Amino acid sequence: MKLKVRLVGIETGFTPVVTINHLDAIRYDLHPRDRVTVETIGKGKRKVIAAVDVISTDKSIKQGEVGVLVEVTEELSLKEGDIVDIHPAPKPDSLKYIKRKMDGEALSARELDRIVKDIVAGSLSEVELSFFVAAVVMNPLSLEEITGLTRALTRNGSRFSTKKRPVVDKHCIGGIPGNRTTMIVVPILAAFGLTLPKTSSRAITSPAGTADTMETLADVELSLEKMEKVVAETGACIAWGGSLGLAPADDRIIRIEKPMSIDASGLMLSSVMAKKFSVGATHILIDIPYGRSAKVSSRFKAEELKQHFLSLGTLLGMKLTVMLTDGNQPIGNGIGPVLETRDVLAVLQNKPDAPQDFKEKSLRLAAELLEFAGGLSKRASYEVAKDVLESGSAWKKMQEIIAAQGPPKEQFKLGHLRTKLLATHAGTVKSIDNKAISKLARLAGAPITKGAGLYLHKKVGDKVKKGEPLYTAYADSTEKIRHVKLYHEELKPYRVK
Amino acid sequence: MKLKVRLVGIETGFTPVVTINHLDAIRYDLHPRDRVTVETIGKGKRKVIAAVDVISTDKSIKQGEVGVLVEVTEELSLKEGDIVDIHPAPKPDSLKYIKRKMDGEALSARELDRIVKDIVAGSLSEVELSFFVAAVVMNPLSLEEITGLTRALTRNGSRFSTKKRPVVDKHCIGGIPGNRTTMIVVPILAAFGLTLPKTSSRAITSPAGTADTMETLADVELSLEKMEKVVAETGACIAWGGSLGLAPADDRIIRIEKPMSIDASGLMLSSVMAKKFSVGATHILIDIPYGRSAKVSSRFKAEELKQHFLSLGTLLGMKLTVMLTDGNQPIGNGIGPVLETRDVLAVLQNKPDAPQDFKEKSLRLAAELLEFAGGLSKRASYEVAKDVLESGSAWKKMQEIIAAQGPPKEQFKLGHLRTKLLATHAGTVKSIDNKAISKLARLAGAPITKGAGLYLHKKVGDKVKKGEPLYTAYADSTEKIRHVKLYHEELKPYRVK
Repeated sequence: MKLKVRLVGIETGFTPVVTINHLDAIRYDLHPRDRVTVETIGKGKRKVIAAVDVISTDKSIKQGEVGVLVEVTEELSLKEGDIVDIHPAPKPDSLKYIKRKMDGEALSARELDRIVKDIVAGSLSEVELSFFVAAVVMNPLSLEEITGLTRALTRNGSRFSTKKRPVVDKHCIGGIPGNRTTMIVVPILAAFGLTLPKTSSRAITSPAGTADTMETLADVELSLEKMEKVVAETGACIAWGGSLGLAPADDRIIRIEKPMSIDASGLMLSSVMAKKFSVGATHILIDIPYGRSAKVSSRFKAEELKQHFLSLGTLLGMKLTVMLTDGNQPIGNGIGPVLETRDVLAVLQNKPDAPQDFKEKSLRLAAELLEFAGGLSKRASYEVAKDVLESGSAWKKMQEIIAAQGPPKEQFKLGHLRTKLLATHAGTVKSIDNKAISKLARLAGAPITKGAGLYLHKKVGDKVKKGEPLYTAYADSTEKIRHVKLYHEELKPYRVK
Repeated sequence: MKLKVRLVGIETGFTPVVTINHLDAIRYDLHPRDRVTVETIGKGKRKVIAAVDVISTDKSIKQGEVGVLVEVTEELSLKEGDIVDIHPAPKPDSLKYIKRKMDGEALSARELDRIVKDIVAGSLSEVELSFFVAAVVMNPLSLEEITGLTRALTRNGSRFSTKKRPVVDKHCIGGIPGNRTTMIVVPILAAFGLTLPKTSSRAITSPAGTADTMETLADVELSLEKMEKVVAETGACIAWGGSLGLAPADDRIIRIEKPMSIDASGLMLSSVMAKKFSVGATHILIDIPYGRSAKVSSRFKAEELKQHFLSLGTLLGMKLTVMLTDGNQPIGNGIGPVLETRDVLAVLQNKPDAPQDFKEKSLRLAAELLEFAGGLSKRASYEVAKDVLESGSAWKKMQEIIAAQGPPKEQFKLGHLRTKLLATHAGTVKSIDNKAISKLARLAGAPITKGAGLYLHKKVGDKVKKGEPLYTAYADSTEKIRHVKLYHEELKPYRVK
């Protein structure tokens, strides 16, 4: 049926959607959520699959009209009043495969590829994608399936390419506030001559992702071309992964998992590996911090995850090394983008107040990669990493990377309001709760307010006197300062004994 | 935050949604799909929970504005330019229970009630509801859980009430074209003096539901008050269940199952029983037709389903009788609303051309209920049913019911285009495929075009000569006639040998 376009300025952020009048729906036997092909008319025909919404009043979309939401408008370059041809589209094959997985059967690489293709094309509705996620949560993916899914996620997306070898990458499982080791490890290794096309994420539930923190120093929203240029010039980059179109289906799957707070290990593994695969990484270091308040809560679980990563690396033909690290407290002193950047600069510039735990962990990760990908001996690798950092080479390289990526969009300053949270009694810091610290930094305004967050004066093992400050909170509103104080009492992030 | 209302004439048909500008989203730390409370200002405050959509351009919703979709507009009676207060709402408890079910744990009656409450309130997103459905498909509900869910579905919805006892109801599992026994059984029993507040569905994937067929004779979109009035006056009604608000959560669950073509037996059982529970039924007959091309494909499966129904009836304290019936071919000759009504009237008016299989099945069902709920002996019940029908009392009662419900919205006529589908060789009709017949009747235009459908001239066991018509298709467009002819060749609904 031919219908007249009415532009509707709404995005679904997911499946492309068009709305039609209920009379047309009856006439053409279309039901809400049915799939239709929307096709432009005339030369250079273009088409897209969209879901139908039926409007039961005549107020916005009249008979003979079709309301076109932003995704479809952009895909087909439509203008108000254009005529489009709409006809029912068949159900995608991947629905059959999803049902098969729900029934407990294994999916082949070809079937997983079909599912991922349909996710990227937007031909699976959110309901259908939810069934896929539920199926793999309840009938966990085998290693073979994870391998197939990883390849499918990578194949159906953009890829970064370079002729350089090796291509080095690192990934941290997350869950530890601070911990901005990427911003130290990347310049050390690049200064040594290795290639690191590093992509990072923004915070979803934490007070900062590496992309948020790097953004206070340089532009991180690079195009794939720009990223290739930066890496060609400097050997490395630290870019936001979200603007590059690498493994885009993964982002959609994550959006389904998030509201349910689901953490399906098979999906996580293929998500991590697909992002590395998409940048052509040949040598990868996986950092698994574990500890009571970390994402991975025990040594046992950390070892188990390590084995999964190593097996997956073998199946995918990628060289992988895994380090289990201390996840019992935040790494570094600053929590929140600007405060973390201060730590990063202190380490790179060899300032006397640089947090030693942060420097030390970064050196150990860099050393592991120098040995694993750079061909150095175990003994030499740590010394070389230290030398590259302390000689100022790493800082020089970081400045090159910043210059190549371009200046940040804004100058971010530390929150102008601050409050000190004090010890109620004397003793030694026994533990600092990662989850509580994350929550307090978010209450202060991080990552939305880049200058907001916490600065930890005391770490585990430090002695404190009664009334001495444990940490300072930075924010830009008195309300947020008040929230931090309130929740500090409730969450009790420090255990002092 | 206080925002200015901009009305957006779009319905989601599901979760209430508001859209905000990306700058406000950043400022208030709201992410797409977050839940917010939308509250009116001033006296008589009203509020509703809605999901947030973030608009990343300034074209439609500017900073300081909120786009309000139809569900929220209606719930809060909003006008363009009104000011509403928006703040983040916590996640509903039912998410925890859904995750628990995904993990294989059983849900308590209280937890199921909470889930159903949240479904009705629209506080669960489609993604979240999909996880619930996937969970109960993959970890099937126990009989105790089905009982809990049935009670929860009923409790969170409208209810029909009458002081009359017994309150009789019947339900057919479906899948057999024609088969409009409700329209014969209800007037027979009501003429006998029993109470039958019957609600029926419209077709989703079939060529007609009882509500579609009844609609050619009377108004079926009754309010609950009107339904109570009709039943008080005549002892019965045949209304569309969709406009009554009985077990509304069930309709939402069905909408999630439909695109996945999921048929979770636990959900089906609680759906059927909740609808009966909501009309206060005390005595229920469940008709399970089985046959190779029926919904229930074997005697074994039919027996299994029968046991589930009987156990559930006991747990719910409802008297239940189950009949396993022949589902090997359509019942009656007409397929499609107007054609089925012709069969119904022929039986009620004792016309000589009335389809005997349809009349006979209706009498058997009516007799079963006369015995089960009416206190008649097995021997007498069939004779009484036959007498009530053949004396014209049932037809008189049906006319009363039609008059009480009110006239149909339109006069529907048989499709003016018709074509006869002929036997290619002589022999005896061995089988008629229910699914193929359904599909052909839908291709002819049923149920959207009420006068479209098929009229079967031959049934199983009939002898046919080469070139004799097997059935006639009725439609209102030559294109549809062409489709029927085309698919008749492909689907071969008749097996003649």
